[in-house]
Amino acid sequence: MPFFEHHLFICTNERDESASRPSCLPKGSKKLKAVFKDAIKDAGLKHRVRANESGCLDQREHGPVVVVYPEAVWYGKVHVDDVGEIVQQHLMNGKPVERLRLPESCINNEHCPHRNAKSK
Amino acid sequence: MPFFEHHLFICTNERDESASRPSCLPKGSKKLKAVFKDAIKDAGLKHRVRANESGCLDQREHGPVVVVYPEAVWYGKVHVDDVGEIVQQHLMNGKPVERLRLPESCINNEHCPHRNAKSK
Repeated sequence: MPFFEHHLFICTNERDESASRPSCLPKGSKKLKAVFKDAIKDAGLKHRVRANESGCLDQREHGPVVVVYPEAVWYGKVHVDDVGEIVQQHLMNGKPVERLRLPESCINNEHCPHRNAKSK
Repeated sequence: MPFFEHHLFICTNERDESASRPSCLPKGSKKLKAVFKDAIKDAGLKHRVRANESGCLDQREHGPVVVVYPEAVWYGKVHVDDVGEIVQQHLMNGKPVERLRLPESCINNEHCPHRNAKSK
């Protein structure tokens, strides 16, 4: 059984500016994590849901990226304005926010059409 | 469905030395992550299994701590010498390494008997 009903990992990886692929940190993912933590607490979910920073989740063209386990729901281009909807709809009511989900064809797929042609 | 068969998160959090509870980083968790990454690659699991650093998983008395999703298996006091067994037995053959699993009574439980009496 999961020991948290939902466990969020928010990519806060930073790559060198010269890297061929972007990274999540410059897109505001540290702030995003802080907003998630506050929203989870405010919703009374503190001991049922946890939000953590993580290293590179390898979906960086879609950053900031968040993955929610154990259900393995991946979100991309998540902004602080989206946090309330994710908390209410997904974390409290079990319905992922479809408009923010990453397409299956993008996840763990080096042929994702959004990747820079230079990347591998 | 999960997009990685197994997704490992290895706590690399560091707290101030004066903190009432310990943290995972000084116990070698950065090295642990590197050893996991190499072992996963060597086992031919690179695109099926991912190992990431994470922020504090709040099981710090048991560090270094690793959680494996989507199955939500928690390991504690994991050392580099344990990595081969976790990769072979759990990640390749689906059988968690029971001797390293955290007791259910310790996870997400502020009354875990291993916590320092001063902590909350």
